[in-house]
Amino acid sequence: MSICVGVDVGGTRVKAGVVDAQGCVLARTTRPTPAAHTPARELEDVVVDVVAELLAVEPCAHAVGVGAAGLVDARRGSVVFAPHLAWRDASVRDVLSERLGLPVVVDNDANAAAWAEHRFGAGRGESHLLVVNLGTGIGAAIITQGHLLRGRHGLAGELGHQQVVPDGRRCECGLRGCWEQYCSGSALGRLGRQILRSGGPGAVTLGAVGGHDPDLPTGEHVTRAAQAGDPECTHALAQVGRWLGVGVAGAVAALDPGRVVVGGGVAEAGELLLAPARAALAEHLVGRGHRPVPHLVAAGLGMDAGLVGAAELARSSVEGGGG
Amino acid sequence: MSICVGVDVGGTRVKAGVVDAQGCVLARTTRPTPAAHTPARELEDVVVDVVAELLAVEPCAHAVGVGAAGLVDARRGSVVFAPHLAWRDASVRDVLSERLGLPVVVDNDANAAAWAEHRFGAGRGESHLLVVNLGTGIGAAIITQGHLLRGRHGLAGELGHQQVVPDGRRCECGLRGCWEQYCSGSALGRLGRQILRSGGPGAVTLGAVGGHDPDLPTGEHVTRAAQAGDPECTHALAQVGRWLGVGVAGAVAALDPGRVVVGGGVAEAGELLLAPARAALAEHLVGRGHRPVPHLVAAGLGMDAGLVGAAELARSSVEGGGG
Repeated sequence: MSICVGVDVGGTRVKAGVVDAQGCVLARTTRPTPAAHTPARELEDVVVDVVAELLAVEPCAHAVGVGAAGLVDARRGSVVFAPHLAWRDASVRDVLSERLGLPVVVDNDANAAAWAEHRFGAGRGESHLLVVNLGTGIGAAIITQGHLLRGRHGLAGELGHQQVVPDGRRCECGLRGCWEQYCSGSALGRLGRQILRSGGPGAVTLGAVGGHDPDLPTGEHVTRAAQAGDPECTHALAQVGRWLGVGVAGAVAALDPGRVVVGGGVAEAGELLLAPARAALAEHLVGRGHRPVPHLVAAGLGMDAGLVGAAELARSSVEGGGG
Repeated sequence: MSICVGVDVGGTRVKAGVVDAQGCVLARTTRPTPAAHTPARELEDVVVDVVAELLAVEPCAHAVGVGAAGLVDARRGSVVFAPHLAWRDASVRDVLSERLGLPVVVDNDANAAAWAEHRFGAGRGESHLLVVNLGTGIGAAIITQGHLLRGRHGLAGELGHQQVVPDGRRCECGLRGCWEQYCSGSALGRLGRQILRSGGPGAVTLGAVGGHDPDLPTGEHVTRAAQAGDPECTHALAQVGRWLGVGVAGAVAALDPGRVVVGGGVAEAGELLLAPARAALAEHLVGRGHRPVPHLVAAGLGMDAGLVGAAELARSSVEGGGG
């Protein structure tokens, strides 16, 4: 009865899975995401295709949840603005629901991932939660009193484009000095390219983990070099970690969560990222010494969080139980 | 039946009033706030005294709401941290309730003011509201789905100490670069003192409105000089207004309110502050062009908001109806 399909529509891949009421992924599949400039119909075809493939394996799934990378109006089930996807002001829920013949819910991918962490992962048991995912950019979501904070138009939770440096680095969103320009996988990759260009010992380690091309080292390369003990790459992760702590301190002052969960690819760095983040959070939180500092912990569900959360949002929408 | 006493405990004055269920102030009184270093008992005596004075006039008031300038745990009714008040981790609700023989609720003063604006003022009819009060510092509160967002420990809504400038101006809170260092009455006063010291035409206007002493011009002087047409003081208000818009843009991305209400002493400047703030909000909001920009409006209740909101929080706590 309680089996749903979750689909995580990211800028690079569409990942989908059949998920049970305990958050276990019973079957999964994936496809490349069609380019943002292709017709919306192609992206819909891919989603319909992955769902059909999964339904062939688990025919009893009775609802579909879609988490999309972009601004999503969850009440209307539409994708408002998604620079990396083909959907433009698209009524994704209605279109997919008609094509699939199943109830569909559509939400922001960060909301979906946060909901999974709240229900089954590192946020379990905490009804006031801040979830920050560091990937290419920052995807964040806020849970308050056990519910996703959605706001007036369903667009709440966008923390990555807070200005943290006046006239700072130019961001893909068109603004300057956005938090995600200093705290993300992209920011870490940029620091890695600086290390490589400098030609010091860090460049040698980065080269050894596969980043010889000066355009190449990604955040992942920097993490692997830091894990191999390279001091410069360790410092780069600490810089990103400190920016994480500073931004989280502002969000904690505003929202007072009981716990902060950090996920996304960059969180794979573990304590190399989280320890400096915790130090910066404790240092930059107003009223420190007079208030509890929330625990800042690594996400528990890894790269499955998005699809598990999307499925769980679909399940609770059909059966009740929050979100 | 539905008459309550509201007490607004600020760093300078304790203001109290008898308030009816429509938010009308039927009687009022005020006292100076005892200094922060005096025993907590003296501040409690002042609150008991103003309530007694008002009860002598309106004996049917049946609950007391207290809004205090500081970090307040509203569930426990205690003041956690309040640099300008004598209360230190003080169980204010229990102490006052016992001394007054009436139900008492205690909340943060910005929460109280926001609740008043939501129920009776410029936030009426909007269930997703951001309220920012610019006084000495920034007092902010968040209303979502018709309720104050309180967070895990009741400490949510503190927006004034978000870092907006790395290694920026030192703040009284011990941090650096806090938003309220650039966007508050104090920030406006600092700009006024710069204008005075520069000795240009703005200095003459500022002197004429009562700020000859180079330590003296306050934000209020700058506002009066700007209202008299002085270009430098108009520019100073616009600078504060732009910082208001930048910070509000970050908060709107995070919270997606349907309306933003700006109150506090600095809001008396009206459009001289709000027009530049609106422009900066529209410019700095992520996804602009693809989403509604919330209206940014002046508060409706002026300096009564704190006591009216405190009374209304007491009323709804005793009779039900939110908060």
